Amino acid sequence: MNAASPIYLDNNATTRVDPRVVAEMLPLFTEHWGNPSSLHRFGEAAGERLRAARGQVRALLGAAQDSEIVFTSGGTESNATAILSALEAAPRRREIVISRVEHPSVLSLVHHLERTAGYRVHTIGVDRLGRLDLAAYEAALSPNVAVASIMWANNETGTVFPVEMLAGMARRHAIPFHSDAVQAVGKIPLRLAGSAVDMLSLSGHKLHGPKGVGALYVRRGLEFQPLFRGGHQERGRRAGTENTAGIVGLGKAAELALANLGDANTRVRALRDRLEQGILRLVPDCFVAGDPEARLPNTSTLAFEFVEGEAILLMLNRQGIAASSGSACTSGSPEPSHVMTAMGVTFTAAYGAVRFSLSRYTTEAEVDRVLDALPGVVARQRGASPYWREGDTAARAMA
Amino acid sequence: MNAASPIYLDNNATTRVDPRVVAEMLPLFTEHWGNPSSLHRFGEAAGERLRAARGQVRALLGAAQDSEIVFTSGGTESNATAILSALEAAPRRREIVISRVEHPSVLSLVHHLERTAGYRVHTIGVDRLGRLDLAAYEAALSPNVAVASIMWANNETGTVFPVEMLAGMARRHAIPFHSDAVQAVGKIPLRLAGSAVDMLSLSGHKLHGPKGVGALYVRRGLEFQPLFRGGHQERGRRAGTENTAGIVGLGKAAELALANLGDANTRVRALRDRLEQGILRLVPDCFVAGDPEARLPNTSTLAFEFVEGEAILLMLNRQGIAASSGSACTSGSPEPSHVMTAMGVTFTAAYGAVRFSLSRYTTEAEVDRVLDALPGVVARQRGASPYWREGDTAARAMA
Repeated sequence: MNAASPIYLDNNATTRVDPRVVAEMLPLFTEHWGNPSSLHRFGEAAGERLRAARGQVRALLGAAQDSEIVFTSGGTESNATAILSALEAAPRRREIVISRVEHPSVLSLVHHLERTAGYRVHTIGVDRLGRLDLAAYEAALSPNVAVASIMWANNETGTVFPVEMLAGMARRHAIPFHSDAVQAVGKIPLRLAGSAVDMLSLSGHKLHGPKGVGALYVRRGLEFQPLFRGGHQERGRRAGTENTAGIVGLGKAAELALANLGDANTRVRALRDRLEQGILRLVPDCFVAGDPEARLPNTSTLAFEFVEGEAILLMLNRQGIAASSGSACTSGSPEPSHVMTAMGVTFTAAYGAVRFSLSRYTTEAEVDRVLDALPGVVARQRGASPYWREGDTAARAMA
Repeated sequence: MNAASPIYLDNNATTRVDPRVVAEMLPLFTEHWGNPSSLHRFGEAAGERLRAARGQVRALLGAAQDSEIVFTSGGTESNATAILSALEAAPRRREIVISRVEHPSVLSLVHHLERTAGYRVHTIGVDRLGRLDLAAYEAALSPNVAVASIMWANNETGTVFPVEMLAGMARRHAIPFHSDAVQAVGKIPLRLAGSAVDMLSLSGHKLHGPKGVGALYVRRGLEFQPLFRGGHQERGRRAGTENTAGIVGLGKAAELALANLGDANTRVRALRDRLEQGILRLVPDCFVAGDPEARLPNTSTLAFEFVEGEAILLMLNRQGIAASSGSACTSGSPEPSHVMTAMGVTFTAAYGAVRFSLSRYTTEAEVDRVLDALPGVVARQRGASPYWREGDTAARAMA
């Protein structure tokens, strides 16, 4: 098994760069390496390609205007820019609304602002399926709120929030609404033009584009304060020489993602379901985390009771299978996932969470190899655990 | 002339990516595209290459430790991170010291903080040669200053400030000292380990590396507050999935720059001097802007009296020669350069400024082609100007 080609099921952490993306990027290094801000011919070709990339990203988001796309260095920068812009635009509004299951880039920033700048943060909880507490969300909205930032889809469970509705609710209170859509973009169709979403973050490397580039959608007319000041790049909304190759790569990745959206919603979903149903059938005492009704088509997080997810991952890795215990941004942490904790998943199960995230490159043969390998891995780990007999009994009693 | 291969003398705006840099980057897109934070094998290869790049950048800076290098998305982010970190680390210090000729990414940020957050900003002037007013700098230093940020070398004139000395003066007041060294790194030798510089910004695309990546040197032990929070990347100092290919490219570019430093200080300087002396000999009524004693070896900015620099650039561009009227970050602006204004250059000369910035790719034949073309271009422009006769007289009267 070790000799077989490795299987990558950690696409929510990062994705393989599509070879067509690399092909588009290369000329920006070798030939059109000029500065798009330069007035001479060396800058022109790069400038033209930036314009094309902006259109490609706009199309994927279903946004109204190319000028609503601001290129950034990735999801973390986009999230920070959106939230800090909203706070600076409305300095007298001293409250922020987020969910408990936001990505660390949002949670850490907002809780830092709570500690150091005195903001009041409404952290909206989720239920056992990871669904947002809509009553609590509505109750938190008021004219004191400077920004509501709710992710489109959760990175760990794939649970999709009803973001258009949440944005509409915020708009009724004239609250700018931002969504970290890093996991959603390219996996499910978006149509921002018809929504009340004011700002949206995306990242190139989650959709088969390069790392180090992302975008922030900023609705036309929204009051905006840049995080990086200086040059006039991105219409003064993000100073700094443009990452031309990265942006062109993101543009091509967006074009390919749009063309593959149907694929993601049929073939990728079918493979994910085959994997998930197979695991549930073959491995005792495990369950799916997240909302089965509203979930990204590529994500399946399973909680294996009474066994450490990290141990499972280690043994899978030895067999050439790459998955994850949750967010790559929190990997190595000894704490159980904040997402699992928010959902009320017991510690024994939360520690046993394993996330499989597929892509358009995933094959049926790969899924079947995982189904061959995983039951034995879990059984061996449980066999080595002194708690397993006891846990086994307890888990069955709870069921 | 048009058919000849184009000549690029705008290397302070951006540089050609060295083919060896591209070769190092490619495997990060095609093969080692994993997330370095992932615990499985897909992340390992990328993680190893990040470590190597950190060492390459450390070596170019003459820094003591690899861990003092924090990778960012470029010079603008590095500058913002350094200044905002210092302010957040010392919230009771309400003054900032900069120079009048800083890059727009520093000037705009600091003046924004002055307007919106009430900081008192000491903006230190320069003399006619672009040299910093040391007495004013010393007078501005006090325990109220949260950060002193002085560029290492000016992007428009190439004037090099005595940064080690300035840093030492700041340290005597326990003021954190930052330098925007985007234009200096790779052009002149640095040795941070033995200096009092606490933070230093650099950018990949100014030294034949890719755009969209840079670094911030942060001296070990300095109190630091990250701009991007969330993931544990860069030891918690810069959250967000690493731009692995960009960082590896920056590392290779740093290695090559270190190997070429001697070259820059001999061959590039000789070519720059040949160009500059030739222009001064062949074109009447022009002078060099900046400090002839302390200047980057690759930069020559000439002010042509009574003619528009933009018009010269346009005609040079038609002949395949790319230069600049100043910072690419301010190109297209109708205002005269703030650097020229700070030096007290008259409006008539400031509008006629043209910056030639060479690189290790520049050849003697290219320099000679510019010397062939430029006198005619300037003469034709002046001939078309109704003010030239008058100006000609006035300029000669002033000389």
